Amino acid sequence: MGKEIRFGVIGAAYMGKAYAIALSSVSTIFELPVRARLEMIATTDAKGAEKKAGAFGFARSTGDWRKLVADPDVDVVGIGSPTWLHKEMALAAIAAGKPVLCEKPLSLSARDAHDMALAAERAEVKTLVGFNYMRNPATQLAKQMIEAGEIGDVIHFRGTHNEDYLMDPSSPMNWRLKAKYASRAGALGDLASHIVNLAHYLCGPIVEVVGESQTVHKARPAEGGVLEPVENDDQTNFLAKFMSGALGAFEASRIAAGRKMGLTYEVTGTKGALFFDQERLSELQFYSAGDASNRRGYRTLLIGPEHPDYGSFCIGAGHGFGYNDMIVVEMKDMILGVTEGKPLWPTFRDAVHTASVVDAVLRSQDERRWVKISEIVGELS
Amino acid sequence: MGKEIRFGVIGAAYMGKAYAIALSSVSTIFELPVRARLEMIATTDAKGAEKKAGAFGFARSTGDWRKLVADPDVDVVGIGSPTWLHKEMALAAIAAGKPVLCEKPLSLSARDAHDMALAAERAEVKTLVGFNYMRNPATQLAKQMIEAGEIGDVIHFRGTHNEDYLMDPSSPMNWRLKAKYASRAGALGDLASHIVNLAHYLCGPIVEVVGESQTVHKARPAEGGVLEPVENDDQTNFLAKFMSGALGAFEASRIAAGRKMGLTYEVTGTKGALFFDQERLSELQFYSAGDASNRRGYRTLLIGPEHPDYGSFCIGAGHGFGYNDMIVVEMKDMILGVTEGKPLWPTFRDAVHTASVVDAVLRSQDERRWVKISEIVGELS
Amino acid sequence: MGKEIRFGVIGAAYMGKAYAIALSSVSTIFELPVRARLEMIATTDAKGAEKKAGAFGFARSTGDWRKLVADPDVDVVGIGSPTWLHKEMALAAIAAGKPVLCEKPLSLSARDAHDMALAAERAEVKTLVGFNYMRNPATQLAKQMIEAGEIGDVIHFRGTHNEDYLMDPSSPMNWRLKAKYASRAGALGDLASHIVNLAHYLCGPIVEVVGESQTVHKARPAEGGVLEPVENDDQTNFLAKFMSGALGAFEASRIAAGRKMGLTYEVTGTKGALFFDQERLSELQFYSAGDASNRRGYRTLLIGPEHPDYGSFCIGAGHGFGYNDMIVVEMKDMILGVTEGKPLWPTFRDAVHTASVVDAVLRSQDERRWVKISEIVGELS
Amino acid sequence: MGKEIRFGVIGAAYMGKAYAIALSSVSTIFELPVRARLEMIATTDAKGAEKKAGAFGFARSTGDWRKLVADPDVDVVGIGSPTWLHKEMALAAIAAGKPVLCEKPLSLSARDAHDMALAAERAEVKTLVGFNYMRNPATQLAKQMIEAGEIGDVIHFRGTHNEDYLMDPSSPMNWRLKAKYASRAGALGDLASHIVNLAHYLCGPIVEVVGESQTVHKARPAEGGVLEPVENDDQTNFLAKFMSGALGAFEASRIAAGRKMGLTYEVTGTKGALFFDQERLSELQFYSAGDASNRRGYRTLLIGPEHPDYGSFCIGAGHGFGYNDMIVVEMKDMILGVTEGKPLWPTFRDAVHTASVVDAVLRSQDERRWVKISEIVGELS
Repeated sequence: MGKEIRFGVIGAAYMGKAYAIALSSVSTIFELPVRARLEMIATTDAKGAEKKAGAFGFARSTGDWRKLVADPDVDVVGIGSPTWLHKEMALAAIAAGKPVLCEKPLSLSARDAHDMALAAERAEVKTLVGFNYMRNPATQLAKQMIEAGEIGDVIHFRGTHNEDYLMDPSSPMNWRLKAKYASRAGALGDLASHIVNLAHYLCGPIVEVVGESQTVHKARPAEGGVLEPVENDDQTNFLAKFMSGALGAFEASRIAAGRKMGLTYEVTGTKGALFFDQERLSELQFYSAGDASNRRGYRTLLIGPEHPDYGSFCIGAGHGFGYNDMIVVEMKDMILGVTEGKPLWPTFRDAVHTASVVDAVLRSQDERRWVKISEIVGELS
Repeated sequence: MGKEIRFGVIGAAYMGKAYAIALSSVSTIFELPVRARLEMIATTDAKGAEKKAGAFGFARSTGDWRKLVADPDVDVVGIGSPTWLHKEMALAAIAAGKPVLCEKPLSLSARDAHDMALAAERAEVKTLVGFNYMRNPATQLAKQMIEAGEIGDVIHFRGTHNEDYLMDPSSPMNWRLKAKYASRAGALGDLASHIVNLAHYLCGPIVEVVGESQTVHKARPAEGGVLEPVENDDQTNFLAKFMSGALGAFEASRIAAGRKMGLTYEVTGTKGALFFDQERLSELQFYSAGDASNRRGYRTLLIGPEHPDYGSFCIGAGHGFGYNDMIVVEMKDMILGVTEGKPLWPTFRDAVHTASVVDAVLRSQDERRWVKISEIVGELS
Repeated sequence: MGKEIRFGVIGAAYMGKAYAIALSSVSTIFELPVRARLEMIATTDAKGAEKKAGAFGFARSTGDWRKLVADPDVDVVGIGSPTWLHKEMALAAIAAGKPVLCEKPLSLSARDAHDMALAAERAEVKTLVGFNYMRNPATQLAKQMIEAGEIGDVIHFRGTHNEDYLMDPSSPMNWRLKAKYASRAGALGDLASHIVNLAHYLCGPIVEVVGESQTVHKARPAEGGVLEPVENDDQTNFLAKFMSGALGAFEASRIAAGRKMGLTYEVTGTKGALFFDQERLSELQFYSAGDASNRRGYRTLLIGPEHPDYGSFCIGAGHGFGYNDMIVVEMKDMILGVTEGKPLWPTFRDAVHTASVVDAVLRSQDERRWVKISEIVGELS
Repeated sequence: MGKEIRFGVIGAAYMGKAYAIALSSVSTIFELPVRARLEMIATTDAKGAEKKAGAFGFARSTGDWRKLVADPDVDVVGIGSPTWLHKEMALAAIAAGKPVLCEKPLSLSARDAHDMALAAERAEVKTLVGFNYMRNPATQLAKQMIEAGEIGDVIHFRGTHNEDYLMDPSSPMNWRLKAKYASRAGALGDLASHIVNLAHYLCGPIVEVVGESQTVHKARPAEGGVLEPVENDDQTNFLAKFMSGALGAFEASRIAAGRKMGLTYEVTGTKGALFFDQERLSELQFYSAGDASNRRGYRTLLIGPEHPDYGSFCIGAGHGFGYNDMIVVEMKDMILGVTEGKPLWPTFRDAVHTASVVDAVLRSQDERRWVKISEIVGELS
């Protein structure tokens, strides 16, 4: 790929633009072996795609994503389209032998995720799933601290991902609320998947869950004001056991009044604890029982150049990390994965775990019992 | 009882002292129809009791709690002894026809709680259980706001009561860790009961639970350094459904590094939300969707004289409420309940609900299934 | 004074009640050589005093404070009356040879404070000024930490005492707004005096100031709605140099929208820093450069039994200290000062410093220049 | 300038890189009439410049900034070099008739700032000074709210800019500590200038100041470990009066232990208040006396798409704004100023005010008196 790594991005809405923003600056922020090039963008119609290419700075555009995937000058495919389209697109990119960055959640089901992972493995294609929140320096730091034993053995994890963007019952129907396009897992699939991935990253795999979800606003106005049924959950809660033996509690909602980016986690260990709240994404709270007993307290670590990846953005500590910066780190990791073989995480395979937890919660809710993740995974092969 | 209401207090440790502190100042803080008198204190030996009477300001003392209960100059009995003694003492006080304030948790089981409630009802004796955290003006305010519909219909409740006072595995064995004295519900019985009572107070009764608890530190050193088994849980998590339809998530721990008084609740409604953290007990966080959409945000209400009970302590808002102040409010309510018939909550009967939820969680854990509260309650009669 | 130390309290409003609350529980909370007795209360009329005695639990009452001062069964005099009355009352108590606890600010001027201090010194009478906020365990801890060198050499102090109880221009005229009764120092005398005393306690004496004050709402409605001029400042700012060489910035306001008990200080040293906000009075924020460079951050110390005086109130850390608790500590210190000769601080003499700083700020404002504290003090003798 | 606006950036260190990051993504983030092009970068040597051009994505490079200024394909000049070089560079750009974005502080003195402003005015060249912190949506929102009267009349402003990057006395000497390169205003010039500019933006001009500064660490190791004198202040405090009559208190430090980006302001009005802390740069705290008296409290506004400029970065509220994002907004404003004539603020002329306040504080400190800004400005012409 010469001096450039050429990205083709499918989708020009929320995540498509986010990808473009990140791609435009990643090579300036990080010292990389190659510069990222915004080669091509695909949307559903050629005209719109051309306009977006101009707005976002892509060299070319297409109204047919298959052309993008097949284009010889596209080195890497980024999939920022709605969930229900991921599988077909990813399989096509894999078939073309191109590394894929696919937005989260990876798929509508564990089965689909498994199929996608299998295809990638067989084709030996590199994959990455866009759980970008884990790339926050604060969370990378948390990972380092846990691994270094700074909080001892992890005994408890509490994770939430609460937002309120759909709290108004008159907010219109959209694809995320339909089983066909977003699965029966609503907040569970869209939001809880973030926090499950984070739990996986920080504390290892989950082995069993029991949960309960609710659709509070059961219908919403579609075009013309006609009420249509909402087909997945507005809020979900589930308990989990980790392979490590730790206990977990998870919560997600898209109607949680007051929470805008209420992705939080508290990881409790035998020697300390960590707390993170994405509404204050440049901070990690750290409690250490290693401090003198009368000087112990939660400490606010403001991320800075001594923490992972931050220094490339700014040399001053505490100057503030932003939403798009996490995606820049994601792009940097994707580029290094492709160009230098740096291990990528989560791959499609890793994301099968998140998808399986989501499916297990759905089954737990249906059958009102604890469900082992191995039960779900066992059915995949 | 003339111009004074004479309290007999059983127990002179943590809660016994707390009762004494509250009783000594309650009549100065609040304008009451009668002044509280510290009439008698009972501990397990006469000498110790006499010393404590001197220290705390009681007029008389005894090494035999039965004498206190029977004493004609004791109008009200306060039970601040360990949990396993509550039942016998309370039944004796009830038999003597005396109003009882009993420390939480009320009993070792829902059955015991039920027996105690029944006895009180038959004897028409007034009772109150010492869940004093609900008397915080911040929480009374939360209750008022929920009832007034300020956050709409409640759809979710998350409650935690996390402390770390037993996080060190070398902390010695004590009665709270033994099933005989504290039941098989450890953090569940001691700490979760607070948050269950608060949930009941704020959101109404719970109808079903599923939970999981763990004893992380399975043995602790008893006298002489001999390790003895810990017989109840260090940490617990459970999900709940409220009668209202709301979803609940509960968490309690006595080994949660970093949390000293981590009693928190977040009540989410269709029009707003409330958040409280007892480590900042003079604050209630309030989010209202009634604010202009670009001016919405969690608001820190510092409790002041416009909120319940605060003004009797201080005329300046935000000057700070303390731990013992909550018990002063409890004593005030108890006195008004006895002297003026003001309704008391939670009575022994109300506390049967909390005890039943605790028992249901224990059963859920044993049988790994959802357990209806009605199942527990149905077995009581 | 036998087994009891008998207090006579002058004033039954805000501080008179606060004194009564503290006196009623101090002997239960702390183990003291004698129990405090609420012997007598004085207000401006006998009837009112009798009523207050009943409400607060005093044994006797009087409508003439001189009788209280002279009463042989009053061991200690507490002065909780308005500022302009302090001098006469304190001098009378001193003349009667009785220890005096006098509310802050001690007097209307440095001269008056000096006269009072001199009288006390000549009569060898123990005195204490009611700057109770310094008795907060969090602030006592701050003092210990500074003295132990935990933050290195202090180089900067910022202190504020902002409230908004008079922010509404239609709030009625009261004695605090009149020069005759409260001096020309409004927020400066009433509120800044607290923070100056704290600065003195934590960082030593001040040697020079320059300041500026403003009366924003220049008139307020008196009885009958007639507007009367406000005769002292609503807000004040001043810079200071400490004897230690440290730089100081002070701010006080009674019209600072949003601040209810905005007494804050940040003490910056060469090796760390401390931050305190009385709206969260159970916390001290501590930053230590002694932590590893990538683990540094402000740490929230929740006060607990390992910190000064807290354990007598509650054995559980972080359970919450309240406004009245600080006055309980003050009473404990006063009692130990009188009965066991424990050094008292601030005495009337110590409070001359605070009063001199206030007077220096007034002069700085009048003459628009830096004013040395020695200039004020030099004029006193 | 056709479809592109071509930037030449002088400097490739901290700010040079920040400019490059912002320029690389600004056209993707915002819909602009033209796309920004990274045309040329200049550093002190041709080789280094070439390398930086490659790293940052500039088309061309030079070791001679004069060539950059003169290059016909450079439309706009960005000056990110050290302060002492600003004047010469800016005057050259102005002479070339090119719009200039110059980093803050604009110059070493008010006189230099005035000369630069005058030159720009005579040449009718557009200018902007890089006080990028004011471009934070939170601060733009604050400005809107103040202008709309949401907090009433402003009566007080407190601003701080505290960092601790030089708190270690062994941190090496650098140009910022030398009078020749950074003026006698150290933290005053480098950091306080930010907060003075913000005060100007939010509350209008300042008319008078009195201040005090200190060099705490008087010497630092230069190359070879030789101690060299520090020639400007480590910390500064000053009081100010605004033209509006409001009172101001300012504080800046580069040795304030614990503060990483402690740029804070509290603007108090007669009807409410605003508080901002750049360590939590995605939040604005708002207190409104318009709320019901028992529902008042500081409200945390998380910035979102309903607030200025945020929506172009992300459509989800509270997702987090970062340091570089503020510079992106700055670039957007610069581009719109140049291409569409959108008013720019602060121009060089506006920055004369900030420089004059800084000079007035220096004089105040030298002469130990209040200094009027008009006194400084009067000497400029």
